[in-house]
Amino acid sequence: MSHPPAPTDYTPTPRSTPTRNRDRAHYDTATVHAILDADFICHMGFIADDAPVVLPTLYARVDDRLYLHGSSGSRPLRNATGAGLAVCVTVTLTDGLVLARSAMHHSLNYRSVVVHGTAERVTEQAELDLAFTSLVNQVVPGRAGDCRAPSPKEQAQTAVLRLDLEEVSAKVRTGGVGDAPEDLGLAHWAGVVPVRRVLGEPVPDPALPAGTRQPGYLRAAVESARQAI
Amino acid sequence: MSHPPAPTDYTPTPRSTPTRNRDRAHYDTATVHAILDADFICHMGFIADDAPVVLPTLYARVDDRLYLHGSSGSRPLRNATGAGLAVCVTVTLTDGLVLARSAMHHSLNYRSVVVHGTAERVTEQAELDLAFTSLVNQVVPGRAGDCRAPSPKEQAQTAVLRLDLEEVSAKVRTGGVGDAPEDLGLAHWAGVVPVRRVLGEPVPDPALPAGTRQPGYLRAAVESARQAI
Repeated sequence: MSHPPAPTDYTPTPRSTPTRNRDRAHYDTATVHAILDADFICHMGFIADDAPVVLPTLYARVDDRLYLHGSSGSRPLRNATGAGLAVCVTVTLTDGLVLARSAMHHSLNYRSVVVHGTAERVTEQAELDLAFTSLVNQVVPGRAGDCRAPSPKEQAQTAVLRLDLEEVSAKVRTGGVGDAPEDLGLAHWAGVVPVRRVLGEPVPDPALPAGTRQPGYLRAAVESARQAI
Repeated sequence: MSHPPAPTDYTPTPRSTPTRNRDRAHYDTATVHAILDADFICHMGFIADDAPVVLPTLYARVDDRLYLHGSSGSRPLRNATGAGLAVCVTVTLTDGLVLARSAMHHSLNYRSVVVHGTAERVTEQAELDLAFTSLVNQVVPGRAGDCRAPSPKEQAQTAVLRLDLEEVSAKVRTGGVGDAPEDLGLAHWAGVVPVRRVLGEPVPDPALPAGTRQPGYLRAAVESARQAI
């Protein structure tokens, strides 16, 4: 049986092609965007003083672009002013623990995206406004419309990097246990344990007036995460 | 009121000292180990062809050392043979969404550890055995004793890197909303939404004999994650 060719909206390059498990690689916009939209923390790698540095960073996706949040005083942000900063941005969602009968075939179900490129500092006001709004909404959709927008002074303390989604790959492992046939008779439990990130009951700020109701977008976010498990 | 000096079991260096929010930095063994023990996926950064690469990788902590899992054919593992590979390994746990009345004071509660160092390939059999056992147990404590150990052929397909915990820092944000006093009267809901990773009900492999009971260590892992939310 022949499979239809997988879509390659993003053109694979040597460094966006995994050296192993290539059947898990995806290069289509739908898969990449869905993974990026399911999280808000990425790990951004860059080079400082000839050594790699990996920092967790808030991000937002807008169309085929990421906005990366930082302080205007932080190392990567300072370095990105001018010619930009070579980065690798990775987002990883863990979906399941795969417990095989053999230690070797233990695995994880996961969805990850790796983006290579040059991150550039956002300086134009209209794009900054879009980035700030998107970063807040990436964490809780709808929240940006229910808080005070940043003042010019606050905006000056924050820096945002722009990273276009051009050299991008996703890697996805789904499914069950992959034990070898000769191991199937071993007397060990085997299966998949689902893993999910959930939101607990929101804890109101003590200074909030008594009886303040939780906004609908927040309840929706909590319920949506609950249903996933 | 004076605070006792914070313990610095790991000596801070320029690159293990954050450029902002230094009050969130920790250098004590207890804090660092507790964060590392609460997860099993790190993001490992290294340099390949003069560019940063960040890949999600399984890890295990054994005393003051990390073992990092990979394929013997993968780029970082090939590069680590010989003089070792300069890496930055970062582990990040998200604990809460901090929704402030102002967009600026939105934040996350989190615990992260950043390790800088040179990763070296593990080659001695006794240390490899320890690493394989620890990697399985990092995901589900107790599991390594309830599966078939890797054969010599399987071991040859897997590679393990060793990274000593020497240049290490943790960064932790806890607590509530940090709005400015002049924003406290704004009519926006504010508070903290707890975030947790939980395990769902294990799904047995279809080939498992009917009536096979879930092992106790697995039930313990699932229940322990449930209680966290």
